[in-house]
Amino acid sequence: MPEENPFPGGEPINAMRSYRKELWFNVPTRRAFINITSQVEQCLRESGIREGLCLVNAMQITASVFINDDESGLHQDYERWLEELAPHEPINRYHHNLTGEDNADAHLKRQVMGREVVVAITEGRLDFGPWEQIFYGEFDGRRRKRVLVKIIGA
Amino acid sequence: MPEENPFPGGEPINAMRSYRKELWFNVPTRRAFINITSQVEQCLRESGIREGLCLVNAMQITASVFINDDESGLHQDYERWLEELAPHEPINRYHHNLTGEDNADAHLKRQVMGREVVVAITEGRLDFGPWEQIFYGEFDGRRRKRVLVKIIGA
Amino acid sequence: MPEENPFPGGEPINAMRSYRKELWFNVPTRRAFINITSQVEQCLRESGIREGLCLVNAMQITASVFINDDESGLHQDYERWLEELAPHEPINRYHHNLTGEDNADAHLKRQVMGREVVVAITEGRLDFGPWEQIFYGEFDGRRRKRVLVKIIGA
Repeated sequence: MPEENPFPGGEPINAMRSYRKELWFNVPTRRAFINITSQVEQCLRESGIREGLCLVNAMQITASVFINDDESGLHQDYERWLEELAPHEPINRYHHNLTGEDNADAHLKRQVMGREVVVAITEGRLDFGPWEQIFYGEFDGRRRKRVLVKIIGA
Repeated sequence: MPEENPFPGGEPINAMRSYRKELWFNVPTRRAFINITSQVEQCLRESGIREGLCLVNAMQITASVFINDDESGLHQDYERWLEELAPHEPINRYHHNLTGEDNADAHLKRQVMGREVVVAITEGRLDFGPWEQIFYGEFDGRRRKRVLVKIIGA
Repeated sequence: MPEENPFPGGEPINAMRSYRKELWFNVPTRRAFINITSQVEQCLRESGIREGLCLVNAMQITASVFINDDESGLHQDYERWLEELAPHEPINRYHHNLTGEDNADAHLKRQVMGREVVVAITEGRLDFGPWEQIFYGEFDGRRRKRVLVKIIGA
């Protein structure tokens, strides 16, 4: 990646394009972290967009999309840390669970890890630093849930 | 919402448009969560934008904009949880409050819940999953504060 | 900043432009908060973009970009609070550190403070509320690391 700005003054580009895709997941466990970088890269290739912004967001409110390292020890650390910050049990610790749900903790964990990421698109690639990878963070799995990929640019 | 990508290859769209509006709030309590989804939808209608991205951000640094469920029990859970993570009192627990403020905790709570959301605009609608709603999270109210809605697209 | 929407109906603007720049940092301490607002404003001037969105993100996964107040007491509060939520020591408390790293806590702190901000560009300016400033949050310094500024608009 060049250190110099390749577009001094801002390079004028063609008419704006838009791309949309849903990625579906059915995680067999309550919680998991899934690397979705290659799926987002596939979306980018399909879009043909060279310069722009790529939004990737969880479409459910008990899941996250975030960027960090693909290292299993770190993922164990996230799992334990989030459980310390917002424990799943006791279920009746949360008002939300009085509705019959048992997933209040998932709504809290998702706020720590975030709903979405916005990634720059440069020269047709995800404009990433050396270790950046996109993850789907599931906190209330065992059912079909979605991630939205929306790319705008030219 | 279709599962198939409606824009294979990226659909070329018209010249980029831009829309901007401020939403004002004067919450009578220190903390509150306010559903602003219908106000953002009204902005989108005014913009006439069909494909693009919608940024919604708090313009003050002791408030949040976030997406989650419109369920009052959950909001009670957020309130208690944020107060555990970053208690309002004792006031003198925070260096920031030595400036004469009493809102250091609000600056911390806002980081957990986030400053902003970016929402995809597809076919003239907020491209949401089944339960996504946009909230203004006030952590230091009892004065006039603002949210910015900025939409770009075509 | 006007309260009325200056672009009712969405103002059509010119062909989309794109701008990209990397900002480099070599923080001499493990942790620090650095105000990068003026550097981002310089990028915006270079871009010539008047209406659009500006993405500013950490390119490393042990650092943050966030928006809050430039007040040193608050930064001390963030430092202590993040250390309470995700302590650096004992090093062996984290599985990630079994890889030979000692920065697992930095990966956790970065999730609380966030990877990125998206800022509206209006009339050629960062469209900010009264106290909003952009910070680079370093949680594992003493080496060269980068922030990406990507602006799209017209």
